[in-house]
Amino acid sequence: MTPGPCPDRHSPHTAAMKPMTDATTTVAELRERVLAFVHEREWEQFHSPKNLSMALAAEAGELMEHFLWAESQASLEVARGLKKRAAIEAELADVVIYALEFANMTQIDVAAVIETKMAANAQKYPVEKARGRSDKYTEL
Amino acid sequence: MTPGPCPDRHSPHTAAMKPMTDATTTVAELRERVLAFVHEREWEQFHSPKNLSMALAAEAGELMEHFLWAESQASLEVARGLKKRAAIEAELADVVIYALEFANMTQIDVAAVIETKMAANAQKYPVEKARGRSDKYTEL
Amino acid sequence: MTPGPCPDRHSPHTAAMKPMTDATTTVAELRERVLAFVHEREWEQFHSPKNLSMALAAEAGELMEHFLWAESQASLEVARGLKKRAAIEAELADVVIYALEFANMTQIDVAAVIETKMAANAQKYPVEKARGRSDKYTEL
Amino acid sequence: MTPGPCPDRHSPHTAAMKPMTDATTTVAELRERVLAFVHEREWEQFHSPKNLSMALAAEAGELMEHFLWAESQASLEVARGLKKRAAIEAELADVVIYALEFANMTQIDVAAVIETKMAANAQKYPVEKARGRSDKYTEL
Repeated sequence: MTPGPCPDRHSPHTAAMKPMTDATTTVAELRERVLAFVHEREWEQFHSPKNLSMALAAEAGELMEHFLWAESQASLEVARGLKKRAAIEAELADVVIYALEFANMTQIDVAAVIETKMAANAQKYPVEKARGRSDKYTEL
Repeated sequence: MTPGPCPDRHSPHTAAMKPMTDATTTVAELRERVLAFVHEREWEQFHSPKNLSMALAAEAGELMEHFLWAESQASLEVARGLKKRAAIEAELADVVIYALEFANMTQIDVAAVIETKMAANAQKYPVEKARGRSDKYTEL
Repeated sequence: MTPGPCPDRHSPHTAAMKPMTDATTTVAELRERVLAFVHEREWEQFHSPKNLSMALAAEAGELMEHFLWAESQASLEVARGLKKRAAIEAELADVVIYALEFANMTQIDVAAVIETKMAANAQKYPVEKARGRSDKYTEL
Repeated sequence: MTPGPCPDRHSPHTAAMKPMTDATTTVAELRERVLAFVHEREWEQFHSPKNLSMALAAEAGELMEHFLWAESQASLEVARGLKKRAAIEAELADVVIYALEFANMTQIDVAAVIETKMAANAQKYPVEKARGRSDKYTEL
């Protein structure tokens, strides 16, 4: 199928055949997977940035719900525990699906804007000032 | 550094040198970039699942704020317009950064859980029933 | 119990006996009702501002979920329709319950801070400039 | 203006003249105050349930942002501390303003639905089972 030594990472066909993992899946491949699902169902008509931002925020709320009453430290055990693990994974998946679909509909390159944002963050939070502190940059 | 024809996609060093784009960046590379930033500042201590889920939800709220009063259709123009484009990109970046850092701290493989979730969604929303409809699966 | 013509609005006992309505219930009475419920269950220990703000945001997300895919106009029919009315009422109740409990735990007088906020809003959004416009005050 | 011993709590005029406090303000009076502000600016056109639920969730996110990195216990000091007190009060005010305006637009009696919700909660969380526990009712 991919005769050369470099697998063609952008073919949706290939993507559909191998299981996806973070190590082997590009952001573009994940985006395409989401888009294909949406397109098959003709759901683009509902996917305005407004609606997708709402869906994203609602899913983020559902993820958060698993940790409402746990102390910060204990929340790691919640996240790792068998009881809620699958539900938490599913909520995180929903969050990222909507974020990628938002990127699809608005044509934002996620990796590029993350790189830009982290460069800005590095300016705001220089290592020597920010190390070990949770203060906002305006208060460092 | 990568003598063969396939670039070594997992070396953080390489990652730091070329600009990141969705087409050429794996999810793992993005995660590593976020983790490196956090680690340098010794911020893991603040990054419990509870705290990260809150930060994620708060950033999702900020993304949403750009579209509060626009009609669904008009929100696409907002997202594409010059006036707010950079701010919207930055908010989306923040959302995905926190989602990836949540995955880092809880050791969730994002691509894998998305694949699992989409398979479940495909069951709930079969194409022939769900096409062109925004109803919840319980009402199809 | 309250022999005079003015019912004693602050007695929890009285409050428990008559059905509560917006027209006849003070904010303080609502707060007391919430507090009594919490206190009976010894839940104050979980009700830090952090946790309550999370619960509030999560409930706001659930309220929002009823309107994800409806157009703005159509969302009024959703809110009035029999199918979802009770669920929407219950979500709004949850939101206000957590807001009042947040006020209880932080000793914020809700009516007073609303008055202060609306005075500030009136400065930012003078009637003659803001009439019929949804723009942010920085853009009026 | 109100010569008798019982102040007329429902006159908006009276409401405008005395400072509002939780002890002396009915929920209906607060709602009217919000509605008057909105009406003067002809903002009802933007206040669909969809839009108001988004605004509510966005404000809840902003309230939460003050407590992202604080431990649960320490968040009480944040809420009481001089540095952030005014901002936190203003965010809580925004949350309740949008909740009341949602109630205005959908004609929900807030006190009544809270009473209904708390009766349902009392069934789900009987005192003897729920005392001192943060578990969901399905796990008691």
